[in-house]
Amino acid sequence: MKAPQVRKSRKTRRYGQRGVPGARPGSIEIHPEAKPSTIHLTSYGPDKVVEFNDCTIEQVREVLGQRAVTWIDIVGIGSPETFEQFGKLLNLHRLALSDVAHAPQRPKVEDYPEHIFVVAQVPMKGTRGETGQVSFFLSKNYVVSWQEFPGREFAAVHERLQHRGRPIRQLGADYLLYALLDAIVDAFFPKLGELGDQLDDLEEKIYDDAEPSMVVELHDVRRQVRHLRSVMWPLREAVSVLMNNHGWMISKEVSVYLRDCHDHTFQVVDTLELYRESCADLRDYYNTEVSNRLNEVMKVLTIIATIFMPLSFIAGIYGMNFDPEVSKFNMPELKWRWGYPMALSLMAAMAVGQLLFFRWRGWLGNGVFTRSNQSNK
Amino acid sequence: MKAPQVRKSRKTRRYGQRGVPGARPGSIEIHPEAKPSTIHLTSYGPDKVVEFNDCTIEQVREVLGQRAVTWIDIVGIGSPETFEQFGKLLNLHRLALSDVAHAPQRPKVEDYPEHIFVVAQVPMKGTRGETGQVSFFLSKNYVVSWQEFPGREFAAVHERLQHRGRPIRQLGADYLLYALLDAIVDAFFPKLGELGDQLDDLEEKIYDDAEPSMVVELHDVRRQVRHLRSVMWPLREAVSVLMNNHGWMISKEVSVYLRDCHDHTFQVVDTLELYRESCADLRDYYNTEVSNRLNEVMKVLTIIATIFMPLSFIAGIYGMNFDPEVSKFNMPELKWRWGYPMALSLMAAMAVGQLLFFRWRGWLGNGVFTRSNQSNK
Amino acid sequence: MKAPQVRKSRKTRRYGQRGVPGARPGSIEIHPEAKPSTIHLTSYGPDKVVEFNDCTIEQVREVLGQRAVTWIDIVGIGSPETFEQFGKLLNLHRLALSDVAHAPQRPKVEDYPEHIFVVAQVPMKGTRGETGQVSFFLSKNYVVSWQEFPGREFAAVHERLQHRGRPIRQLGADYLLYALLDAIVDAFFPKLGELGDQLDDLEEKIYDDAEPSMVVELHDVRRQVRHLRSVMWPLREAVSVLMNNHGWMISKEVSVYLRDCHDHTFQVVDTLELYRESCADLRDYYNTEVSNRLNEVMKVLTIIATIFMPLSFIAGIYGMNFDPEVSKFNMPELKWRWGYPMALSLMAAMAVGQLLFFRWRGWLGNGVFTRSNQSNK
Amino acid sequence: MKAPQVRKSRKTRRYGQRGVPGARPGSIEIHPEAKPSTIHLTSYGPDKVVEFNDCTIEQVREVLGQRAVTWIDIVGIGSPETFEQFGKLLNLHRLALSDVAHAPQRPKVEDYPEHIFVVAQVPMKGTRGETGQVSFFLSKNYVVSWQEFPGREFAAVHERLQHRGRPIRQLGADYLLYALLDAIVDAFFPKLGELGDQLDDLEEKIYDDAEPSMVVELHDVRRQVRHLRSVMWPLREAVSVLMNNHGWMISKEVSVYLRDCHDHTFQVVDTLELYRESCADLRDYYNTEVSNRLNEVMKVLTIIATIFMPLSFIAGIYGMNFDPEVSKFNMPELKWRWGYPMALSLMAAMAVGQLLFFRWRGWLGNGVFTRSNQSNK
Amino acid sequence: MKAPQVRKSRKTRRYGQRGVPGARPGSIEIHPEAKPSTIHLTSYGPDKVVEFNDCTIEQVREVLGQRAVTWIDIVGIGSPETFEQFGKLLNLHRLALSDVAHAPQRPKVEDYPEHIFVVAQVPMKGTRGETGQVSFFLSKNYVVSWQEFPGREFAAVHERLQHRGRPIRQLGADYLLYALLDAIVDAFFPKLGELGDQLDDLEEKIYDDAEPSMVVELHDVRRQVRHLRSVMWPLREAVSVLMNNHGWMISKEVSVYLRDCHDHTFQVVDTLELYRESCADLRDYYNTEVSNRLNEVMKVLTIIATIFMPLSFIAGIYGMNFDPEVSKFNMPELKWRWGYPMALSLMAAMAVGQLLFFRWRGWLGNGVFTRSNQSNK
Repeated sequence: MKAPQVRKSRKTRRYGQRGVPGARPGSIEIHPEAKPSTIHLTSYGPDKVVEFNDCTIEQVREVLGQRAVTWIDIVGIGSPETFEQFGKLLNLHRLALSDVAHAPQRPKVEDYPEHIFVVAQVPMKGTRGETGQVSFFLSKNYVVSWQEFPGREFAAVHERLQHRGRPIRQLGADYLLYALLDAIVDAFFPKLGELGDQLDDLEEKIYDDAEPSMVVELHDVRRQVRHLRSVMWPLREAVSVLMNNHGWMISKEVSVYLRDCHDHTFQVVDTLELYRESCADLRDYYNTEVSNRLNEVMKVLTIIATIFMPLSFIAGIYGMNFDPEVSKFNMPELKWRWGYPMALSLMAAMAVGQLLFFRWRGWLGNGVFTRSNQSNK
Repeated sequence: MKAPQVRKSRKTRRYGQRGVPGARPGSIEIHPEAKPSTIHLTSYGPDKVVEFNDCTIEQVREVLGQRAVTWIDIVGIGSPETFEQFGKLLNLHRLALSDVAHAPQRPKVEDYPEHIFVVAQVPMKGTRGETGQVSFFLSKNYVVSWQEFPGREFAAVHERLQHRGRPIRQLGADYLLYALLDAIVDAFFPKLGELGDQLDDLEEKIYDDAEPSMVVELHDVRRQVRHLRSVMWPLREAVSVLMNNHGWMISKEVSVYLRDCHDHTFQVVDTLELYRESCADLRDYYNTEVSNRLNEVMKVLTIIATIFMPLSFIAGIYGMNFDPEVSKFNMPELKWRWGYPMALSLMAAMAVGQLLFFRWRGWLGNGVFTRSNQSNK
Repeated sequence: MKAPQVRKSRKTRRYGQRGVPGARPGSIEIHPEAKPSTIHLTSYGPDKVVEFNDCTIEQVREVLGQRAVTWIDIVGIGSPETFEQFGKLLNLHRLALSDVAHAPQRPKVEDYPEHIFVVAQVPMKGTRGETGQVSFFLSKNYVVSWQEFPGREFAAVHERLQHRGRPIRQLGADYLLYALLDAIVDAFFPKLGELGDQLDDLEEKIYDDAEPSMVVELHDVRRQVRHLRSVMWPLREAVSVLMNNHGWMISKEVSVYLRDCHDHTFQVVDTLELYRESCADLRDYYNTEVSNRLNEVMKVLTIIATIFMPLSFIAGIYGMNFDPEVSKFNMPELKWRWGYPMALSLMAAMAVGQLLFFRWRGWLGNGVFTRSNQSNK
Repeated sequence: MKAPQVRKSRKTRRYGQRGVPGARPGSIEIHPEAKPSTIHLTSYGPDKVVEFNDCTIEQVREVLGQRAVTWIDIVGIGSPETFEQFGKLLNLHRLALSDVAHAPQRPKVEDYPEHIFVVAQVPMKGTRGETGQVSFFLSKNYVVSWQEFPGREFAAVHERLQHRGRPIRQLGADYLLYALLDAIVDAFFPKLGELGDQLDDLEEKIYDDAEPSMVVELHDVRRQVRHLRSVMWPLREAVSVLMNNHGWMISKEVSVYLRDCHDHTFQVVDTLELYRESCADLRDYYNTEVSNRLNEVMKVLTIIATIFMPLSFIAGIYGMNFDPEVSKFNMPELKWRWGYPMALSLMAAMAVGQLLFFRWRGWLGNGVFTRSNQSNK
Repeated sequence: MKAPQVRKSRKTRRYGQRGVPGARPGSIEIHPEAKPSTIHLTSYGPDKVVEFNDCTIEQVREVLGQRAVTWIDIVGIGSPETFEQFGKLLNLHRLALSDVAHAPQRPKVEDYPEHIFVVAQVPMKGTRGETGQVSFFLSKNYVVSWQEFPGREFAAVHERLQHRGRPIRQLGADYLLYALLDAIVDAFFPKLGELGDQLDDLEEKIYDDAEPSMVVELHDVRRQVRHLRSVMWPLREAVSVLMNNHGWMISKEVSVYLRDCHDHTFQVVDTLELYRESCADLRDYYNTEVSNRLNEVMKVLTIIATIFMPLSFIAGIYGMNFDPEVSKFNMPELKWRWGYPMALSLMAAMAVGQLLFFRWRGWLGNGVFTRSNQSNK
């Protein structure tokens, strides 16, 4: 019943493993295992794109504002000085920075006087439904994306930035934020596909032969679905808020694109709800199947016991040692010429009678003495 | 327990089997198995109707605008050039075209500057609850309907267009959209009828004799109901949005008709909810029935064992080989004149006593030694 | 387990058994089994009441408008010409007429330019939760009530119309509509009373002795409650809509009365919800009871088997035929003076020991060897 | 399993046991068992309090308006003339009076031109969750409270009216209504305490030893909680409506007090929801416990059968009567010198082997041969 | 099955253990076990902080208003005179004071003319999910925090007040209230961590070996989650109300901080919902596991019985005492030369046949004769 490989990394990361209650809000405590930050800079306008890898805060200061949009892509939340420097440079609110550092946070959108702050969660490859946090700061001419763990979600966006005619080059920072959010939402679909295939497989297997190990696997899928739902519902809401209420930062044109992204979040949520119901259905099916089998097992036992107990009893009767010599009432059958055949016939008659009884009861009808599912494919 | 014919095409198509996360929004990737597009053109006004089968984009360009309404009915989403050409000709938004190509999408209504975009799902005949996507573009003087798979739903609308006096000829493109949506919603009713009959049959059968194969069938009905619900809820909302918020494109008169269509979606949703509860009820009933049977089986076993075990024990006693010759305490019964009859009487008395005990306990009252449901119809 | 008398008319009528998808909206298809229409006319004002039985459309045309209010009470939806004639005479919308003809429809209120259209469902006497449709058209000076099946619900309204001083004579057509709706809602209460009594009975019976036939009955009550709920929720909403949003047709005074009617719909809905939870509770109780009994049955079996198996084993030992003559190790007990009494004592000691063990385990405490509920009232 | 004392007065009173459907709205039908009305009058202002017991309608007419507030406390709804007289004297609406007479009604607040009408339900002492109706009419200078059954809830309010300085003497009729409603809501708390203690007791008992009788008791608690919830939800809403929307009759000052009362209704509702979940949890726990026990019982049976069946079989072998004289293959063991000890040793070895097998399977680990919960406290 | 250490302090404190129904609202009844109050005073401005321990009402009166903010931190609700004195000094509303005294109350925010009144609940260390009440009064220049039990939640706030440059010294009383509320919400996280670890442990254990004692522990976790949810939902709402609707007392700047606090409450609620679903899942898993085991146990029993019953029957046959001397039909096998070996072979053949049958049925496949989970890690 143990399926160890299924259960690795079962401990889902929880919200709010913070310091002392009552500590100063906006204080930043670096998690000891967090990776140090690396900064990737992309500055672009309709005409030109400039990229810097592993750059320093000074480079950022220099480049900022030179072209239409600057995308500051930070990976890793383990360097306290990065928080310090960017907080000062871009005038980011302490509470927002604290949310970046204290991942995981619930997906959300928050307005600050000079920027919009967005928290999202993206499923991590190779994990069992774990998600990593990506935070965004959107201002008129820059987007900061701050990833907890390095991921490949933004590679395609980088790629698109290289092509001169693309809308991403024409439109502003708000479109870049949309493109990044869309990449995050799209990253849920492969995970959904994986879970869906696993569920389809499980369904196939449980229909064929319900084995205890499948319950463990089903349980694991449920846990993943549950976790993804808890992340996706607020993400959907965050995208909806972004789409509807932020005219001051997000243009009408980009709002149409966000509607498309919102639509995708809806599809993720719908699919997760379907999976959840599928899981519940499969578990019910499994339980019914187990009951059916118990029934069959018990029928076999009852049939065997009901046939052989009376037979053994008769054999027991004639195994008694009453002395036929003493009186004619003491087991005269033993001395009869046809005694033994008579006893055997009686037994045979009883066995046949019982079998007829069981057939009449419908117990022999189906399933009892036929082969189980396991091997009759 | 396997019912293979029930489970064909069990793998429901899922949302969003798209390309790389972060790919350019509005890019169109043709599914390798998608059918190439064929275009059917109907142009009509109160006076005249012209139809073109299998026509080209040039014919569309020519005909467009000649009469009051042009209905462009495209079947198949496998031709990239069709997307290209219609996108340019009618100025359709890339995101909308992308939703047409990447079926299945969640039913929805979206406003674009020059047209309204509607996605719907229609149940496909001969499948187990599968749906095919139909997308619409509505403008002042044309309707584009774009079906993923060829279907017979719009045949009756074609038919109605031939008759001069009908309202469909008098009213505009919005009425045509309504007529097509109504045809789609109406196409759910036969499917509902089918599922309802299946459920009624199942209920009948489970009441008569609960067999494991019924659980598989029930499970299959549940899956279909679940899928149809997941399609119908957003469709209902889409029709509601269309009815209430689109005065700029949909006339007051057609709004009354859409209300009727909305009402039908409500009936579909209500019926699906009823089915869902019926399924749950039937499963509960089945489980209770299985428990009842287990109880009966166990009662039979217990009665048999409880009667014959003591009897066999007595027979065993008198089968012991203690030597009556040695002392008068050693099984003197064996030498008694009435020993054997006495032993048999004792056994008979015990059996009768047990039966009385069971009758008093109420175990013999009903069900145990009567015939099962299966055959007493 | 079959209770045929409970399950008659199990096939609930479903929504939308209509014609071809895509057929012309507002087309009227008469159900082949529908009864032809008969028209009953009541024209009244504060001073005078005139009634006509089985009257024709000409009589209606004549009487209409002569007095303050005309009540046209049509029974039966089987005459296509009635739809035609009334449609023309009163200018009724095709979609509304189509909803009258294609019963059952979901209860609703719809505004049309010249009248309000209301669909309601009323429980039919002598059926198992079936409902019949009653549709209403309300205009300033007439009310059309169109019943699918003849019923006695409106008899008391007819009666009240005969009395000069009653408010029904003073107030307008809107009050008449209210009176008829109130009669329909009131018709749910006897049905609720019936179901409630059935549930109370079932509870009583299941507490006393849980028999499989009760599950069938319970299942039937659930089905009825489910169907009535599916009808009552939209009816409640319809009355609420009527009460709040229709000042142009319904006077303030009558609105107060509708509030009372709305309150009654609320009571019906509340009661149905209570019934639903009661049903669920009773089913749970039944299942627990079945488990308890299985437990008891198994305890009896286990106690019997555990006592007699070792005893039989000992008897079996001394039934072995090892030859004591051969050696002194071969069953010397058989030759002992006190061998047989010793063996019997050993058996008695074991049986007593087992019983003590079971008492210590608490298995003999309650329920096992006491009489079942069935007969200890 | 029967616990008769728990189930007294199980038949909950239902809504709407009214007369003929379609009867005149506002007609008053006195329930044959209703108690005749007695009227208690309290007239007070800041300076003086006058009380009259068992007074007549003439006294009411006389006293009304003499002082700031008149409280007319009527007990019993069995006197038709009281309805008649008060309806005329205070101009009470027929529909409201009808709701007073046809108890039980759903708690609600209704505006009438000259008064506010409130229906509440109060738990009755000594019943199993039954509630009695209390209706109120509030006008500027009087409050009518009309109790279905006599109760002690208002005693403390009477008491408070005697003290000159109290706010109840300073403030108007709206404060009196608040005081009475608050007394009604407060009357729920002792009932909740009772149910809570019962649940705590049940939990304690079920943890110690799950007996069938507890399910009956649990079922009864659920029923009471269900009924109180169905009464409390609308009552909470009614108080909320009163607090928010009735500035024309209820002063700002009293509104603050009503907020407190509303808060109490919230606490009642929260507690009832907690109880409901507790009940569900306890039932689940009980069912799991029953399964556990079945498991244990079956383990004992299986262990016993598995040990003794092979032993008995061996004994049976050597009990066969094959004649060793005939050939050396016929049971030569019987003639061996160490035959019997060898057979016994074989049996002992098998028994020990089986026990080792069971220990290895973990079946002997816990619970099977240890004493049950019942007595190990 | 009893786990006494898990179940200590199981009796959750309930709302509203108040006095007589109808008693004067705002009356204050001191709970006999409540601790007497001690007052801690902190008065601060940007420049200076003054603290007083165990101070009297006179000191409070003196200090109040001297600096920008005065924080009156009262611990214990057992001194009636404290309620009296503070009620007078700060003009606190009787209803609010009554809510402070009659803990526990539902978390809420209430506006009074001169202050805002907030009730919160904080989890108590060392208890099983118990919470203690903390009430707040916020005015322009003071905050009263009134704790039911002494706790360490506010220690960090005290600490922060000592540092001159901190925002808490610059901002007003509203920021202090926020800081205290935030400390309370943060105090939930360690409790959540504890419960989460317990659930993870339980999951691990139940996967390895489902023992009855785990159900008790699971049940206990559910109860704690249930209680914390019932406290956290209204607390979340209270913070939301505070954040949105109280511009008159709470500055825009502090509102941003409250949004952060609101976000934390959301995380607590989300986590509790996840725990609730985990609990339900684990219980389902446990039940399925118990069914699986029952199935296995029954299979072992059935296999053993089915193999040995026929064997014993054959042994019984040849143990019968029919006299072969009398006729050649009476058990001639006993005299055969190969009689005994033949009988043994027959038995062996039957046993092998049965085993093959069971293998074919798939009963021997997995789990039956392999070691249980318990020890195969």
